[in-house]
Amino acid sequence: RLGHVVRRKLGEDWIFLVLLGLLMALVSWSMDYVSAKSLQAYKWTYYQMQPSLPLQYLVWVTFPLTLILFSALFCHLISPQAVGSGIPEMKTILRGVILKEYLTLKAFVAKVVALTAGLGSGIPVGKETVSGRLDLLVPACAVGVGCCFAAPIGGKSHFLPTPEHDLEGGLSGCLSFGVERQPYYYTDMLTVGCAVGVGCCFGTPLGGVLFSIEVTSTYFAVRNYWRGFFAATFSAFVFRVLAVWNKDAVTITALFRTNFRMDFPFDLQELPAFAIIGICCGFLGAVFVYLHRQVMLGVRRHKALSRFLAKHRMLNRLSYPGNPRRISSVQSASTKHPWRPAPFCFSLSQLMPREAISTLFDNNTWVKHVGDPASLGQSAVWIHPQVNVVIIILLFFIMKFWMSIVATTMPIPCGGFMPVFVLGAAFGRLVGEIMAMLFPDGILFDDIIYKILPGGYAVIGAAALTGAVSHTVSTAVICFELTGQIAHILPMMVAVILANMVAQSLQPSLYDSIIQVKK
Amino acid sequence: RLGHVVRRKLGEDWIFLVLLGLLMALVSWSMDYVSAKSLQAYKWTYYQMQPSLPLQYLVWVTFPLTLILFSALFCHLISPQAVGSGIPEMKTILRGVILKEYLTLKAFVAKVVALTAGLGSGIPVGKETVSGRLDLLVPACAVGVGCCFAAPIGGKSHFLPTPEHDLEGGLSGCLSFGVERQPYYYTDMLTVGCAVGVGCCFGTPLGGVLFSIEVTSTYFAVRNYWRGFFAATFSAFVFRVLAVWNKDAVTITALFRTNFRMDFPFDLQELPAFAIIGICCGFLGAVFVYLHRQVMLGVRRHKALSRFLAKHRMLNRLSYPGNPRRISSVQSASTKHPWRPAPFCFSLSQLMPREAISTLFDNNTWVKHVGDPASLGQSAVWIHPQVNVVIIILLFFIMKFWMSIVATTMPIPCGGFMPVFVLGAAFGRLVGEIMAMLFPDGILFDDIIYKILPGGYAVIGAAALTGAVSHTVSTAVICFELTGQIAHILPMMVAVILANMVAQSLQPSLYDSIIQVKK
Repeated sequence: RLGHVVRRKLGEDWIFLVLLGLLMALVSWSMDYVSAKSLQAYKWTYYQMQPSLPLQYLVWVTFPLTLILFSALFCHLISPQAVGSGIPEMKTILRGVILKEYLTLKAFVAKVVALTAGLGSGIPVGKETVSGRLDLLVPACAVGVGCCFAAPIGGKSHFLPTPEHDLEGGLSGCLSFGVERQPYYYTDMLTVGCAVGVGCCFGTPLGGVLFSIEVTSTYFAVRNYWRGFFAATFSAFVFRVLAVWNKDAVTITALFRTNFRMDFPFDLQELPAFAIIGICCGFLGAVFVYLHRQVMLGVRRHKALSRFLAKHRMLNRLSYPGNPRRISSVQSASTKHPWRPAPFCFSLSQLMPREAISTLFDNNTWVKHVGDPASLGQSAVWIHPQVNVVIIILLFFIMKFWMSIVATTMPIPCGGFMPVFVLGAAFGRLVGEIMAMLFPDGILFDDIIYKILPGGYAVIGAAALTGAVSHTVSTAVICFELTGQIAHILPMMVAVILANMVAQSLQPSLYDSIIQVKK
Repeated sequence: RLGHVVRRKLGEDWIFLVLLGLLMALVSWSMDYVSAKSLQAYKWTYYQMQPSLPLQYLVWVTFPLTLILFSALFCHLISPQAVGSGIPEMKTILRGVILKEYLTLKAFVAKVVALTAGLGSGIPVGKETVSGRLDLLVPACAVGVGCCFAAPIGGKSHFLPTPEHDLEGGLSGCLSFGVERQPYYYTDMLTVGCAVGVGCCFGTPLGGVLFSIEVTSTYFAVRNYWRGFFAATFSAFVFRVLAVWNKDAVTITALFRTNFRMDFPFDLQELPAFAIIGICCGFLGAVFVYLHRQVMLGVRRHKALSRFLAKHRMLNRLSYPGNPRRISSVQSASTKHPWRPAPFCFSLSQLMPREAISTLFDNNTWVKHVGDPASLGQSAVWIHPQVNVVIIILLFFIMKFWMSIVATTMPIPCGGFMPVFVLGAAFGRLVGEIMAMLFPDGILFDDIIYKILPGGYAVIGAAALTGAVSHTVSTAVICFELTGQIAHILPMMVAVILANMVAQSLQPSLYDSIIQVKK
């Protein structure tokens, strides 16, 4: 009788949601933790080889290469379905298609392990070339993890209620109660899983829920609304508490907290510039989706590649979305790159993607900076004595653009959100710095001088480009939550909507494009 | 041929949305403008009577009374359907019920005029007793206006496509094109109308869209998402630009901008207090809904009243939700009140509701304030030399609570959102000040002292109580947009969700409750 009571209790929505949120937060946090340790080891090895340049080079190349290959192989052997961002798959499932072997515990494990390896290889180096391909792929992947996570619990108990029942115990029991009670419960739980995945990985419960709704659903049941918020809030909360408890953060704050002035964050006369960012981001987003699709199709059509893959049938499953040869070619290209465009790119290559974002969002105006760059802190890497900062950002943007496209088509669990986010931030900063060059003294309006805040432009650019690529407007909410500031709400909404209008009329969203290719 | 091209162009979604947003902003702004002028006239008359106290009293009582009676009569004569907040009606319509004479141009005009009169009577006086009843009723009403506004355009062209066609010209043509193209277009447009109404009145496009989705829909078509955002953003933008152009505001910022410290807005150890706010707000919200329904039912059941109304059949339509007798009794009660609880309430009665909110959200800690209260600016009215500020807030909360309930059942266009918002802010501030009394030196954690910010508690309380009464979680988003700060996101989400859990298990939402009574 006690077991029955326990099961009925667990069958209640909110207890299931708490468990889901808690487990997601723990998984997400351990992934962060392990990959951080891995990158510490990487850095340590790299500096141990200090005197010998060839050895350093060897470590620098082999460490991430090993991890990426491990990630790809692990995925391939355990669950080839785990490859990719997860959002297109979720969208397909929510439309009623049953993807075999996708929502299984195996796929979940493959996703978590391969993703952690990918993270551990890419982030620590801080080489933006490497990071551009790998560590940035995390977030959208966490979506996949979230989905996979909700799924083995929700999915199995739905389709195979009895055999799995004992295996998964309470959780499964809880779900089967839920399924009996409500007809659409399975889909509901998947939606919630998506929301938790996005919300937890950024620590943005609101934006995560909205983004996952926009990206995966066509019709949305409002009664799932609070479910998503509840689980995502709980998950984000636990995730942050773990960070505080682990002394990573002093207290609970936004991930990329900005510090813009509150009083007059922008002036009306700057709006045309924001609108231009929006429209350009719309075009750039469409180009990104188009090139991404061409790369995917190109790999598929490549004849020599196909023959090679036909021979080694084991590798066949890897044909989408890339193959090991491409990994290594990209890897070598990337390893060559940092030495190439001379000193400033070398210093930039030391930026981790998270650092890249926080420096792009910072409160200084780089074109106007005079004196020692060290006073800018981390942002000092963007300043070069001989080269104008605008050119540096432009170069960064161009390199990042093609590398992100190549990276997001690799055969490991990866997502497209973060690379695009960095791209957008760089583009916005570019426009902002140009504006600051054009109006070095700020804009005069009504006897008050408004200084240009290039950081604000970067935030708006990031929201607009991610919005254009994913065809969503809730990226604006994610940006507010990430930066902890909502001062730029109106220009950001304007830019995001303009970007959406342009991108939607030119190309399908990145996720729809992937669905089309995979079909 | 040209006319045809023009019509087809207007039939495109986004042009219609722009026009809708533009017109809503203009209507909303003119309402604000006229009511502000009306209150200036009120204040001016009041101060002209300076030496004579009886004359002053006369002006003080008759001016709002006249305007309220005018508002009630105007509504009654032109369109009795315009009475009330509009949200319950929208919810009913979106569920497929056709409310006769509700979505008409007549109802729209009645709503706008009556609401402006109500605003003009209540706000200017700054008597919180009067304001508690009238000026606070605005926002939810603006929803109604938004809906009514979309409706004569959308509704008519759908149901009576030909006769109205010439009358409304391009707009109607646009809609009829739209209707032909898409099956659910009518409902879609209503949803967008709601979103624009809420978004425009607060200047909160994001929160407005989410709130209107949560409040009115059961299933939501994600394709309407961007429509709502587009129109609401445009509308909010025009509304703010008009304010800047009219020199009301220096630049485009949040309505109730807060200025909390960004670095450590709160500490983990404060979370229990936030959770308590959430749970208490859940109970308070349920009590509010319960009492509100009892008042509505009580008025209906009252025998003498019914007989009276049966005799004067003309007044019959006014039987819901109040009658003139009640207006005057409440009016006299309210006019008596400010003199009653001695000096501090008198000074508080000079607070306009908008001022009340901004003072409740301010950055000082009132219990710790020493010295001249004038240094606090507007917040000085809360400080009294003999009485503790906690007792003042408590009294304010209790008086406001019953007055808000009476006020929202009056037979004029009125809404429940704003009064509840002020109530919640007062409750949150109460808890915050008590916390500041208990921990006068702040909370020590990890060698850093976190000072208590009672203003943050007020923001959280406002979001939690409105969330509890309306059964929504998007009130949190509205709060972020209103205050322009997102630092308290996690505790606010926790409080709002807890409040929702408690309130949803006890009572239906305010709007569902009104629907039940009206049925």
